[in-house]
Amino acid sequence: MSATAQRASRRGRSARRAARAESTTVSQPYITRNIPLTELCSEEGLEIIEANADTILKEIGIDFTDDDEVLELWKDAGADVQGTRVRFEKGMLQGLLKTAPSEYTQHARNPARNVVIGGKNLVIAPVYGPPFVRDLDGGRRYGTIEDFRNFVKLAYMAPSIHHSGGTVCEPVDLPVNKRHFDMVYTHMRYSDKPFMGSVTHPDRATDTISMCEILFGKEFVDSNTVCTSLINCNSPMTLDGTMLGALKNYSRANQAVIVTPFIMQGAMSPVSSVGTLAQALAEAMAGMGVSQLVRPGSPVIFGMFAAALSMQSGAPTFGTPEPTMVISAAAQLARRLNLPFRSGGSLCGSKLPDAQAAYESANTLTPAVLSGVNFMLHGAGWLEGGLVSSYEKFVMDIDQLGMMGTLCKGFDLSENGQAMDAIREVGPGQHFLGCQHTQDNFETAFYRSTIADNNSFEQWHAEGSLHAVDRASKICKEMLASYVAPEIDPAIDEALLEFIAKKKASFPDSNV
Amino acid sequence: MSATAQRASRRGRSARRAARAESTTVSQPYITRNIPLTELCSEEGLEIIEANADTILKEIGIDFTDDDEVLELWKDAGADVQGTRVRFEKGMLQGLLKTAPSEYTQHARNPARNVVIGGKNLVIAPVYGPPFVRDLDGGRRYGTIEDFRNFVKLAYMAPSIHHSGGTVCEPVDLPVNKRHFDMVYTHMRYSDKPFMGSVTHPDRATDTISMCEILFGKEFVDSNTVCTSLINCNSPMTLDGTMLGALKNYSRANQAVIVTPFIMQGAMSPVSSVGTLAQALAEAMAGMGVSQLVRPGSPVIFGMFAAALSMQSGAPTFGTPEPTMVISAAAQLARRLNLPFRSGGSLCGSKLPDAQAAYESANTLTPAVLSGVNFMLHGAGWLEGGLVSSYEKFVMDIDQLGMMGTLCKGFDLSENGQAMDAIREVGPGQHFLGCQHTQDNFETAFYRSTIADNNSFEQWHAEGSLHAVDRASKICKEMLASYVAPEIDPAIDEALLEFIAKKKASFPDSNV
Repeated sequence: MSATAQRASRRGRSARRAARAESTTVSQPYITRNIPLTELCSEEGLEIIEANADTILKEIGIDFTDDDEVLELWKDAGADVQGTRVRFEKGMLQGLLKTAPSEYTQHARNPARNVVIGGKNLVIAPVYGPPFVRDLDGGRRYGTIEDFRNFVKLAYMAPSIHHSGGTVCEPVDLPVNKRHFDMVYTHMRYSDKPFMGSVTHPDRATDTISMCEILFGKEFVDSNTVCTSLINCNSPMTLDGTMLGALKNYSRANQAVIVTPFIMQGAMSPVSSVGTLAQALAEAMAGMGVSQLVRPGSPVIFGMFAAALSMQSGAPTFGTPEPTMVISAAAQLARRLNLPFRSGGSLCGSKLPDAQAAYESANTLTPAVLSGVNFMLHGAGWLEGGLVSSYEKFVMDIDQLGMMGTLCKGFDLSENGQAMDAIREVGPGQHFLGCQHTQDNFETAFYRSTIADNNSFEQWHAEGSLHAVDRASKICKEMLASYVAPEIDPAIDEALLEFIAKKKASFPDSNV
Repeated sequence: MSATAQRASRRGRSARRAARAESTTVSQPYITRNIPLTELCSEEGLEIIEANADTILKEIGIDFTDDDEVLELWKDAGADVQGTRVRFEKGMLQGLLKTAPSEYTQHARNPARNVVIGGKNLVIAPVYGPPFVRDLDGGRRYGTIEDFRNFVKLAYMAPSIHHSGGTVCEPVDLPVNKRHFDMVYTHMRYSDKPFMGSVTHPDRATDTISMCEILFGKEFVDSNTVCTSLINCNSPMTLDGTMLGALKNYSRANQAVIVTPFIMQGAMSPVSSVGTLAQALAEAMAGMGVSQLVRPGSPVIFGMFAAALSMQSGAPTFGTPEPTMVISAAAQLARRLNLPFRSGGSLCGSKLPDAQAAYESANTLTPAVLSGVNFMLHGAGWLEGGLVSSYEKFVMDIDQLGMMGTLCKGFDLSENGQAMDAIREVGPGQHFLGCQHTQDNFETAFYRSTIADNNSFEQWHAEGSLHAVDRASKICKEMLASYVAPEIDPAIDEALLEFIAKKKASFPDSNV
């Protein structure tokens, strides 16, 4: 694309953005909570955890490996740096994190899809990371870029998903060192919701930002957040060069990062919840601190991923009470730092979208929502401990996420919500089916599940005695068949493809 | 049994009871919450609901049908009685309910199984009421007394079930007017946990109390609560003679009743949650008031059963957000009356113990536990909107209930719980698998699910690719095969059987 064409396209883009912003009539594209918070940890417990995190930071410290620049930054900031080990005086990190915003807007290419992350808001993204996919027809198999596209399409079509996410599955059919181009492009092209960037190499973060600059314009990206990316700590108490490199590149570009202690309790942290929380708080504060060192005020999310290790099989377990409690308390700790909080999600260990999967997912999802999570990764599609992106589970989960939206709305205290006219009209011993209030409200009165079968046994039986997964499979196919891509400026699309082609041609394929 | 034998047996019983009480070493047989409450309704919302309930009671009133005695009692108490319609001045019922205890002990024949209902406690009972049963092998069929015995046995064997419940399924093979004898006897003989009595006719309540007097001794029953029974309101705003008769008989005998507005929102109440709550509060207060009229101080539980009506099929739906919110707010209303609160439970509309069943059950269970329910009916086994008692669902649900017990314990803030020694010992970049703290705690560190498969995909596949329901079926069969009945004094057993035989012979069988 010529420089003239670029400028023209940029002007056209701004004009279209303004037009879309004016004409948009869709409701707020994320959840704002209107119910009190569930807080499972006492004030005493939180103070103990915070004091222990301070002790860990001061006496044990955090390892920052393979990144001399970060060690220099810590030295300059006044931390105690010995080799790769960095120790922090009490209160130093809390002070450093004061520059991080308590909430921020992540812009989408469709401004009607912009999300505000933090505060009373809940933004939900799909599953992240699985190398495998599963559906009822094809069983379990490695993910491909076609699967990746399908999950982006499903997330785009689901009103209860607010964010296109990142690695909705690994496109294993593409070379490791180049697949990020296709992944980021897929989010940009097949959805107009906000998305996540590549974090598997610092250069891939830079590539993501370059592509964002093509999509949004360079100036816009420098002064606005258009990307939120996932930085996992190597728990316990370590951040490595790959993640730090990606973190620095995003933060320098004013793009948001989620710093997440990724913890299997019993392996990467103590078996106890209070011990796990102290360690995770120390790790998260140290990791988030880097973002404020490289660019004070850049958006950063306090993340927490917790699963309990099965002491029998050594496998992670999900949906059990201990991680639920850890997530709830971590949300409280994040609020005390005045920072947005991220956690899952519809997590489960089951191999199939069966009762185990559903119990476990609900056990993670509901408490996370009630506890005030701001950014929810793995909202839909997660199966088998995160090894599998499941098509049917995705469709089941988005139904559950829809319910969470209704739950968060809280009670309607209006005169219509009080319904005293209906109670007067109907009176003792009668029914409300035909009364005026019911007629006026029945369309929107109750959340309507897409997956649940609430027909009579006889009707259900006559229709083939379907399991929930059978109904989900049908809905999933219907969704994909009816997908229509959001419009994109052909000049931008061309520029993105041109950038990718040029970049891909500039170095050989590799699977590391 | 002769009078002498009776006296001897009574003495022996007291001696045994005392001995059991001394020797008992089992842990507390119910849950005491050690986590903060989840309260979804604001103070403003609660005040609106309470004011509207007062308006309903004063202006619309409640119908008490087919029970002249209750109308007389209300007249004497100063209520406005017009025909069967009773209206109440603001504050009258709140004043009347002040004599009801905020918590009470329900005695079991094994004192180690006594439960305290109310306050911070949670007592869980199985499913109540289904005419059908289902298992993997036999499919869906009418329940029999053998099924009834099986569910009593399963509840007896499940540590996470604290209460034997009542109509664990309908024994449809027995005549309607006599099956209560066999049902109550089954709870008494095949379990030693506390149980519920018959409510389908006032005489059947009296029979239940007579059997309790044989089991516990007459004096003991008069001064202690040994039975908690379920009185459903005929919502909207009606209590009928059958339920009122049973209620009065139990309350006069100092036995506990649960007064439950049984509500499908949209049919028996307005489609809105706030309207439903005002109506339910009015109904519950009026029904509970009767217990305090006939015997001030007799134990009574504020109950709430809420489901939303599908406006498409007319069927009840479960696990959706609206009933969750109603239950949570109703718990708040009960606490403001200083009364124990009852609600479900592992409710679902699914025909099968599949993902729908599990999502819906978890969506009801977790918020109910977090919201501070004191007595949970339908804790395990509920399927198909309460039409079916499912063997496999029962086994899955008791696993979930076990998790709730762990969740309610809250955080271990002890030095061991803080685990700072482990964090110091392991340090950055290492793992916690072998450290001293893990070795000392791994046996009890995490809740171990009985149903979840957390093995590798390969191992799971090699073992037959089982669904959760397959594993539950296996566990269910193992439980029933290994059941051993609790001991019972043969003289008491004989006296119970004698009473039943005599009573059964005294009137003809009937199916009404």
